Amino acid sequence: MIHDLTDEEARAALPLKWETPGVVPAWVAEMDYRQAEPITEALVDAVRRGALGYPPHGDDLGAAYAGFAARHWGWEVAPEASVPTGGVMSGIRLALEVLCPPGPVVVPLPCYPPFRDVVEVTGREVVPVTLDPDSDEAVLDLAAVSRAFASGARTLLLCNPHNPLGQVPSREELAAVAALAREYDARVVSDEIHAPLVLPGATFTPYLAVDERAIVVTSPSKTFNMPATHGAQLVLPDPADRERLAAVPIPAQNTWSILGVIAGTAAWRDCDDWLAALRQRLSAQRELLTELVADRLPKARMRPLQATYLAWLDLRGYAVADPAAAALAHGVRVAPGHDYQPDLEGHVRVNIATTPERLEQIVDRLALGVRP
Amino acid sequence: MIHDLTDEEARAALPLKWETPGVVPAWVAEMDYRQAEPITEALVDAVRRGALGYPPHGDDLGAAYAGFAARHWGWEVAPEASVPTGGVMSGIRLALEVLCPPGPVVVPLPCYPPFRDVVEVTGREVVPVTLDPDSDEAVLDLAAVSRAFASGARTLLLCNPHNPLGQVPSREELAAVAALAREYDARVVSDEIHAPLVLPGATFTPYLAVDERAIVVTSPSKTFNMPATHGAQLVLPDPADRERLAAVPIPAQNTWSILGVIAGTAAWRDCDDWLAALRQRLSAQRELLTELVADRLPKARMRPLQATYLAWLDLRGYAVADPAAAALAHGVRVAPGHDYQPDLEGHVRVNIATTPERLEQIVDRLALGVRP
Repeated sequence: MIHDLTDEEARAALPLKWETPGVVPAWVAEMDYRQAEPITEALVDAVRRGALGYPPHGDDLGAAYAGFAARHWGWEVAPEASVPTGGVMSGIRLALEVLCPPGPVVVPLPCYPPFRDVVEVTGREVVPVTLDPDSDEAVLDLAAVSRAFASGARTLLLCNPHNPLGQVPSREELAAVAALAREYDARVVSDEIHAPLVLPGATFTPYLAVDERAIVVTSPSKTFNMPATHGAQLVLPDPADRERLAAVPIPAQNTWSILGVIAGTAAWRDCDDWLAALRQRLSAQRELLTELVADRLPKARMRPLQATYLAWLDLRGYAVADPAAAALAHGVRVAPGHDYQPDLEGHVRVNIATTPERLEQIVDRLALGVRP
Repeated sequence: MIHDLTDEEARAALPLKWETPGVVPAWVAEMDYRQAEPITEALVDAVRRGALGYPPHGDDLGAAYAGFAARHWGWEVAPEASVPTGGVMSGIRLALEVLCPPGPVVVPLPCYPPFRDVVEVTGREVVPVTLDPDSDEAVLDLAAVSRAFASGARTLLLCNPHNPLGQVPSREELAAVAALAREYDARVVSDEIHAPLVLPGATFTPYLAVDERAIVVTSPSKTFNMPATHGAQLVLPDPADRERLAAVPIPAQNTWSILGVIAGTAAWRDCDDWLAALRQRLSAQRELLTELVADRLPKARMRPLQATYLAWLDLRGYAVADPAAAALAHGVRVAPGHDYQPDLEGHVRVNIATTPERLEQIVDRLALGVRP
């Protein structure tokens, strides 16, 4: 059910990821798999019948997302809570500018680099809460969050599940965050784009299930490998939030595409079988990665990968400050850890959503780069 | 060559425009024609092979646009001058925020409503320069622009060709604007999305041909009826402008889609025959409109429609303050003039890009609405 792109197919289909000839790409978060067939068919049908105009005022995206949430997470969310937007980052920008109080924004580090940028783009200050790279568990430092709120921060930018840590916060952890947010009247913006990519063994908790005042930003584009369709959703249970958003003029709205609505509806509604096969594949890739790392990179540290197809590797044991640069010289491109946390040495993020053969090449070449 | 959508096809393909059952839609700027075949084929191919990821760093869009400009306008523009962006309005926002000096922005009225919004979204003041609705020609009031620059405005937002006036500024008019911009060290942002829709009898002048310091924002999405593909271009001859833009973080960049690149390249490169057929059809629709208006709305005034498929009708002769509202009660939706110029009574914008039969219905119903 998962169609692996050949090298030739992948170079043509994913020109950014595969831009450097001879380099096995394990950096940007795209999968070397073709999207699910129901999405292909919905898009081809849309193109053939000329559905390339503006998105409609009402659509089925919210209902399809609500159905997905009920089936997969046992979580009830109102269809009308979903408000379409163009993408997750532009959705976060919109949330900060329109729905969040002014004041500094707590950003747990490491983080997806645009998380820091988006805060600065909205003219707000970033208050980093940094994970100790030596800690066994990738849990949020709640005492530091509490201090940040006490010092005036009024928003927390959460990544649930976490990219690049691959961690799934527990319901208890999220409830503790929610209690702090309530105490300080702060708002939480939760990026849940990786929620459907929780792997066997972990359980996803929608942040809104513990904090109804939060803002969720999500999209099927990551799980279903289709960022080009430009469709994402703000999930806003509070009608007042939806009204404030609806009053924002078009040039600030980061408008979405009707193709995003059509593909997203198919993704949330018709692709459960494909998603089950994908999770199975990613689970197998995760096991293979664990074996390969134990074998080729014995000094590497890696917390259990609970979600996403992005593994966070601590290679400080090899005493190479920038292992991504070292690996690139040996023909593999992984994402450098310092992109996610400035000044952090010796870490990389590795994209495992590819074939087993390429994953072996990736780890081999990475090992060539960092081993003496 | 032009495929007219049936009512049923149009309702499914263009759900925003056709949202109200029983109402003939002549409001939002979408055409009731299917896109050109080369675009359909390029998009279907992209979807089938899984090209739904991120856009590449380099692409053929600038070269395709340069080829189009040379063939159609005899104008040489460097392929590398084109910088992709998500849409025209988000491109204008980016131009104002990143490339234009602070200070008030001159906006000629009437204007596409988001023109005023985008200026306010960037925290700048709008300085309106209003067309006298009684003037025979829709030319810019240069004395008013000069006064605005003298009073501190430092940017002019031009619409070339003009929406909603359907006017094509002459080279001399544009050169006079450029001279003023030079005198006051102001920058001109020229929206040229309607440039390929200049109809027989008029000649398009790229604003950059008279002012190399300008910023052009354009997209094939209007001419080729495909806003869903999310692809537009800033045309920046100055490498320093391109560098400033490249330094902007992702969450402020209004990113474009690889589908926009693929569809846009096909549009600029492979669709000249379709475009010639479209212009012919629109020219015939324009003649039909002139006849219908003379017959059914003899008190209407209309300057010659030189470009676009959007006609600007002065219906003040019928003494109805809001003719769009009056017409809606009779089953046709046109765009109210006051959306384009607050406080302007008795005007409407009419979308003529449909079948001759529907255009007759549109004028008939409009006449029922405004005639005593």
